[in-house]
Amino acid sequence: MIAQASLSVSTHGRGTYEITEEVERRVRDCGVRTGLCHCFVQHTSASLILCEDADPTVRRDLESFLQRLAPDGDQSFEHSNEGPDDMPAHIRAILTKTDLTLPVHAARLALGTWQGLYLYGHHSRGHARQVLLTISGEAA
Amino acid sequence: MIAQASLSVSTHGRGTYEITEEVERRVRDCGVRTGLCHCFVQHTSASLILCEDADPTVRRDLESFLQRLAPDGDQSFEHSNEGPDDMPAHIRAILTKTDLTLPVHAARLALGTWQGLYLYGHHSRGHARQVLLTISGEAA
Amino acid sequence: MIAQASLSVSTHGRGTYEITEEVERRVRDCGVRTGLCHCFVQHTSASLILCEDADPTVRRDLESFLQRLAPDGDQSFEHSNEGPDDMPAHIRAILTKTDLTLPVHAARLALGTWQGLYLYGHHSRGHARQVLLTISGEAA
Repeated sequence: MIAQASLSVSTHGRGTYEITEEVERRVRDCGVRTGLCHCFVQHTSASLILCEDADPTVRRDLESFLQRLAPDGDQSFEHSNEGPDDMPAHIRAILTKTDLTLPVHAARLALGTWQGLYLYGHHSRGHARQVLLTISGEAA
Repeated sequence: MIAQASLSVSTHGRGTYEITEEVERRVRDCGVRTGLCHCFVQHTSASLILCEDADPTVRRDLESFLQRLAPDGDQSFEHSNEGPDDMPAHIRAILTKTDLTLPVHAARLALGTWQGLYLYGHHSRGHARQVLLTISGEAA
Repeated sequence: MIAQASLSVSTHGRGTYEITEEVERRVRDCGVRTGLCHCFVQHTSASLILCEDADPTVRRDLESFLQRLAPDGDQSFEHSNEGPDDMPAHIRAILTKTDLTLPVHAARLALGTWQGLYLYGHHSRGHARQVLLTISGEAA
């Protein structure tokens, strides 16, 4: 069986937004017992990460790392007409992931103890970000 | 249902080659209505990206970013016998993606408005690059 | 059909551990002829890569590249209480992949000639790392 569901995530600026529970609920609702949950961000300046979810400084350090790796307002970028954060946002989305597949086991996401699923908004301004879930496998 | 199809992409040097339409055609031909399209590059010096497809300077900036991140001819690399662009090509392939899964909805790739799918050739010389597509889901 | 299998990989320090054959064996055992093999690392400081498997200097160069990109003991990191290698390990896991999907064709992984599958342990100390495989498709 296969089911699709859309998830809208409201961002209010650059940062990580945990969506583990909302995705987990969709998995539970769809009735797949053993299978996969594919998560897909329909944007080029937002992405998905699996990250340590116990200590919030991990995500702060990740953010500062990415700011140093692809600084906003880099003068060497030609694509600057959509703001100083736009080209870095595209780079961040490509270096992290816009699609991510998670295993479903016993009708739950089979995440490790410290793994949390986050939408990562890379633009400074807020957006409504769409995540399309495709959940497939054997029914419960 | 499940279908596999091979796509050959001729590269003529380093750069991005849009394959959205060719993949879309394979999806249409195979008859899956709701499901997933897995795209797999069978190489270690080419990769796949989803990237903003409206402004070509985005891909030029991405290329210059990657050149600065992993410069050709870096003297610290031991693996240099296949040319100054080979080890950077392996790094670029690993930091981007050699496999990518796209949702299929209503018999079409459910991409966002600005998302285009590109094969990224990282070698300076041209190659015939193989992309194996595995399309699965419910039939139309 | 769909099958899940767990693979435990013992790491003894930072580095790459080839798991191509062990995954291949699970694919053969489960009886899927055409489909996909999803590989998922249930950790936030280990990851998966597909890498050139002929010349070991490629993986040494990749390791030195990652050490320079995200150095251990970076003073700008707040998350330092789990050791100088922990925050770099989280970054490395996010920049590479914790989930990876490989095509199955004729009951084998359809890898390219030079592609090998590696678990990448990013911590200096050893661990038992769990990889959950979900293999799906048409039976032989």
